[in-house]
Amino acid sequence: MSNLSVTLKTWQERIRQELWQQVIPFWLNYSLDRQCGGYFNCLDRNGQRYDDKKYVWLQGRQVWMLARLCRLYPEHPERQRWLEAALLGLNFLRRFAYRPQDQRVYFCLSREGQPIYLQRKIFSECFYVMALAECSRLFGDPSLIQEAEQMFAAIWSWVGHSPSSPLPLGRPRWPGSPAVSELAIPMILLNVIGELAGSYPEQEQWCLARIRLHHRPELRLVLETVALDGSLLNSPEGRLLNPGHAIEAGWFLLEYGERTGALEGSLQTMALEMIAWSLQVGWDPEEGGLFYFLDREGYSPVQLEWSLKLWWPHCEALVATLAAFVTTGSLEWWRRFEQVADYTFAHFPDPEYGEWFGYLDRQGRVSQRFKGGPYKGCFHVPRALMLADRWLSRALDQQDQQGVDP
Amino acid sequence: MSNLSVTLKTWQERIRQELWQQVIPFWLNYSLDRQCGGYFNCLDRNGQRYDDKKYVWLQGRQVWMLARLCRLYPEHPERQRWLEAALLGLNFLRRFAYRPQDQRVYFCLSREGQPIYLQRKIFSECFYVMALAECSRLFGDPSLIQEAEQMFAAIWSWVGHSPSSPLPLGRPRWPGSPAVSELAIPMILLNVIGELAGSYPEQEQWCLARIRLHHRPELRLVLETVALDGSLLNSPEGRLLNPGHAIEAGWFLLEYGERTGALEGSLQTMALEMIAWSLQVGWDPEEGGLFYFLDREGYSPVQLEWSLKLWWPHCEALVATLAAFVTTGSLEWWRRFEQVADYTFAHFPDPEYGEWFGYLDRQGRVSQRFKGGPYKGCFHVPRALMLADRWLSRALDQQDQQGVDP
Repeated sequence: MSNLSVTLKTWQERIRQELWQQVIPFWLNYSLDRQCGGYFNCLDRNGQRYDDKKYVWLQGRQVWMLARLCRLYPEHPERQRWLEAALLGLNFLRRFAYRPQDQRVYFCLSREGQPIYLQRKIFSECFYVMALAECSRLFGDPSLIQEAEQMFAAIWSWVGHSPSSPLPLGRPRWPGSPAVSELAIPMILLNVIGELAGSYPEQEQWCLARIRLHHRPELRLVLETVALDGSLLNSPEGRLLNPGHAIEAGWFLLEYGERTGALEGSLQTMALEMIAWSLQVGWDPEEGGLFYFLDREGYSPVQLEWSLKLWWPHCEALVATLAAFVTTGSLEWWRRFEQVADYTFAHFPDPEYGEWFGYLDRQGRVSQRFKGGPYKGCFHVPRALMLADRWLSRALDQQDQQGVDP
Repeated sequence: MSNLSVTLKTWQERIRQELWQQVIPFWLNYSLDRQCGGYFNCLDRNGQRYDDKKYVWLQGRQVWMLARLCRLYPEHPERQRWLEAALLGLNFLRRFAYRPQDQRVYFCLSREGQPIYLQRKIFSECFYVMALAECSRLFGDPSLIQEAEQMFAAIWSWVGHSPSSPLPLGRPRWPGSPAVSELAIPMILLNVIGELAGSYPEQEQWCLARIRLHHRPELRLVLETVALDGSLLNSPEGRLLNPGHAIEAGWFLLEYGERTGALEGSLQTMALEMIAWSLQVGWDPEEGGLFYFLDREGYSPVQLEWSLKLWWPHCEALVATLAAFVTTGSLEWWRRFEQVADYTFAHFPDPEYGEWFGYLDRQGRVSQRFKGGPYKGCFHVPRALMLADRWLSRALDQQDQQGVDP
């Protein structure tokens, strides 16, 4: 075994231990609401519940996560618990989150499933689709994938066909603001299409064309918001960098390329540049870790939380750097993985109670101690650990092949 | 002159110097848009503009501030500049911010006055009323106070008469969330009524009754959100403390009491307790300064920015502690003023470029360097300095009277 293989193996063991001993047990022990169905989202450091509300992004994501684990680890001794937990969330979602009259999906529900909030955005619907699609495969139930496809068709009708006209989500367009493209939209749609696993070539091309508007070689940056014609906006929105988001989009593109066999020159270059540029500009040179937001011209972002170090950009960066390493074979990407992983594993895990802290201040001190909150659930950490484990296995296979085939 | 009088005088000089040399000149030099009217809001540390957008809360507040200075300092050599600047904002507001068909006021406009955003809240309308009312007095124009009163009647119809039913502002009420009272609403309405200077006894009593729901002797705390029947909510919203807000409400009540002659026992007690409790619980024992948000049971607030030290709570605390000192004559309040003022003047002013920094991290380092942003304009700092100057004059008068009348 080469030195690199030993290092890869050591990281893989660390990652597997975290996933199976620290992260998944936290959610199975504390999040399941066996009385009302669904999952508790607001869990303190030690798993104690500090709010009853059920956030639908997180309900959908947890269903997806548990169902995916069931599919990928069919021999795992805990699989039956995951399966029952996935079903607990799926039934709650279908019963309470979905609003048949207009195909909208609520953002927040009470413990009992009563509506608390409906966002004028598409993300609740997207995570609902992911949950249904993954459960369709897990349970072999074609009606679930049909529901998912119908939901996706509705989302697509809202954003896809007339992207510069008013969204039928209750959010008006105002004459004083330009029509913009936000990276979040094509990114999540490309990810959702991958989950549906049907044939959506037109929609994929639309997503790629939109993402390309945000990838800016002239700046060597990925912009969160650009004008719909691709021109730059000289405003805080137009100068906003969200490095974690751009890095996530990068590995979505690598995954899309692998899945479709389209990972040729320009797509691969764009994906790798998005990751590399965002790691470069997003990394705090003084304190380490990835900033949440930056302004591309160096102004203070108007987001008060800009300098926090959040768990999820680091999760995305673990996955993205490993995917880039396997794709390119370049040790430069392995070096970047270790830079991210060293910071991440030194700061976010909580050996005492499991799961990861979500929010650190710029200096890396815990800023909010809870493990689950309105935007943090059973998703980014286990997804990143699961995907990192799989990319490391492929990297080890590559090393083995190089070893026998010099 | 007593030692205390010397100290009072020293603080007053520091405060006047800040107001006249550092703060008002910043806004007059950098915020006026002589081409399109109104004020630029997004100003970097040195006054450089980093966005063109015009935030209507801040447009209304700056008109109010400049007009109030004109009224209170009729002999000031800069008064004519203030007056022209107030008119620049007033004309822009009336022309572009107000929407006649439903009496709503936009939240954000483009530089040219085109709508960018309409909030489903009443605050734009409230600051619009304040601007019109103060300008009516300044210019002796009765049509302005009529417009202000009509706007206030609309606001009142939206929130006052059926406080638990859906607001006609496009924000639905959902069955999963309880009907709540938010401190912000009665607080701002009481403040606006004071600006109208008409007779609104019924509305004032409604505001006082609502504020009383938030003042909780059993906890010795002021809660930001309670159920409409006054019961406590065991959720992050229901446990939320916003010390700066509660302190501001305290001095609004002292001012209301003075204005109406109602500053007797229970009202005065409530006002002073709101200020004292909030200073006590809100002050960071480790690093000094007031936290932005806290959870009354010690959970981490879900607001990512909870531990920042913002300029405006400190502005409110300067005014509130001085008002309490003058009201009670107790040196304990003077001690509290100095605690707040020592921290405030050591951290927020910027001798190099004027105005104050708005956002510090928990340790007191500047977190965003800009002086003007979407929620920070020509308002909290000059209002606090102006009011502190006036309360200090009254405190000095009291000291003089005690000196000659032992």
